Amino acid sequence: MSAPGCAFRRESKVMFKHCDPAALVFFPRFFEMMNDLIEEFCDHIGFPFEDFHTRGAIPTVAIEAGFPAPSRHGDRLELALWVERVGRTSAGLRILTTCGEEVRMTYRATLVLVGRAGRPEPWPEDLRQALSRYEFREDT
Amino acid sequence: MSAPGCAFRRESKVMFKHCDPAALVFFPRFFEMMNDLIEEFCDHIGFPFEDFHTRGAIPTVAIEAGFPAPSRHGDRLELALWVERVGRTSAGLRILTTCGEEVRMTYRATLVLVGRAGRPEPWPEDLRQALSRYEFREDT
Amino acid sequence: MSAPGCAFRRESKVMFKHCDPAALVFFPRFFEMMNDLIEEFCDHIGFPFEDFHTRGAIPTVAIEAGFPAPSRHGDRLELALWVERVGRTSAGLRILTTCGEEVRMTYRATLVLVGRAGRPEPWPEDLRQALSRYEFREDT
Amino acid sequence: MSAPGCAFRRESKVMFKHCDPAALVFFPRFFEMMNDLIEEFCDHIGFPFEDFHTRGAIPTVAIEAGFPAPSRHGDRLELALWVERVGRTSAGLRILTTCGEEVRMTYRATLVLVGRAGRPEPWPEDLRQALSRYEFREDT
Repeated sequence: MSAPGCAFRRESKVMFKHCDPAALVFFPRFFEMMNDLIEEFCDHIGFPFEDFHTRGAIPTVAIEAGFPAPSRHGDRLELALWVERVGRTSAGLRILTTCGEEVRMTYRATLVLVGRAGRPEPWPEDLRQALSRYEFREDT
Repeated sequence: MSAPGCAFRRESKVMFKHCDPAALVFFPRFFEMMNDLIEEFCDHIGFPFEDFHTRGAIPTVAIEAGFPAPSRHGDRLELALWVERVGRTSAGLRILTTCGEEVRMTYRATLVLVGRAGRPEPWPEDLRQALSRYEFREDT
Repeated sequence: MSAPGCAFRRESKVMFKHCDPAALVFFPRFFEMMNDLIEEFCDHIGFPFEDFHTRGAIPTVAIEAGFPAPSRHGDRLELALWVERVGRTSAGLRILTTCGEEVRMTYRATLVLVGRAGRPEPWPEDLRQALSRYEFREDT
Repeated sequence: MSAPGCAFRRESKVMFKHCDPAALVFFPRFFEMMNDLIEEFCDHIGFPFEDFHTRGAIPTVAIEAGFPAPSRHGDRLELALWVERVGRTSAGLRILTTCGEEVRMTYRATLVLVGRAGRPEPWPEDLRQALSRYEFREDT
């Protein structure tokens, strides 16, 4: 059971496949990691990603990302996800990726729930409630 | 020869590999396309990407991206790249991706030139001049 | 117009995204290149890949691949594709990837045409004829 | 502790990122999964993949793969890895991927240990012994 305001957290090793000839994580791979984390989060709160995608999609429509320090093969990353705001048909997510004390990636994204016909749809009430349990608060 | 203020332009088909089960471009694949375009741009202005990476790297340290409309398998995208500002060791890039009249992706990124020791280095003067030929101007 | 027995040929630069921390092409990326080539081939012979995938799929069901020599960032690869045999619902493809005189990858794959219901379907006659123009012959 | 002849086993969910517009795993993604499994195996037996790659590389030089049945988003795959033979500088690996009773992928690969200078090197004795604990036997 998650306490209010808690983040969804996972650890992840930087794998060989993530890294480029400079021996650093190739940045598009970081966005794959973000998507994997969001998928694991949805699975965890009882709304498996594969179910969304039989009924529509949850495209990411806006992203802000920063990479204050490089990440290397073998690094053990800690990822923490918060829900920043839940609108009628969209939601903001914030993900912080660290390695020890060092921030490796900051990530803010807006996702939209889209139905089969390609139009935005309101979040179902039970999903809205599940999301709100991970809401970001300034004192977190 | 490029006129001042011109963009570097390429066309690109949305390939099968780019698309997800919702039949839309999986957004991390868009970031791969951005990196490919930057590599082709560097090749084009006479500074092949593979040469940078024997001497260091050009990591992307900040990104802002928007996806105002979805892209599908078979779409013919037009990509246009401008240099937004060239600092001492960093540069801003702006890439606009369209399909016909429709904007599909907006992209602004900051890249840093990093030497073998992992520290930022000033752009060589000839590279700085090559970049400035593609500088973005409000009246472009 | 293609002469009988000719290969479908393309050139392709090894891009930054293809390479791993050992500065060699990460082998799963080679399989992406193979799929891209097959997509370009289908587009070229008048059967765009995106049309297949509204009606079904062409999954790859068997692969044999060899990598006799490594490939590096910046290498200019030459890819040549032949059709090895066209069965009722399947086809064999052979792709040879070289850099100058050196063979970099050998590839043989079997693809199956599958309809919406997930069952194999016979190749349409016009596609069968288009494929046969690229048939591999021992004296090629 | 592993008994002789045992496989290295892992479970893995088919994620959104693995799947294509036909809603099946895009086959190059399967090769990424194979490489991930081999990396986890090396980590598990005490030879972290990131250490190899500071001293050289372990390129895959030959592959045989089959996909007897399709895999879909959300499927829980079971992967089992055996060492098929350990030569002086190369090793054969066999990986079987199943979902319940159904075989989804068969995989046999040959890897070579390569030093910094790019030439094959003999396996260190302790690594050879660690590998041999997972040797495939016909009665496994």
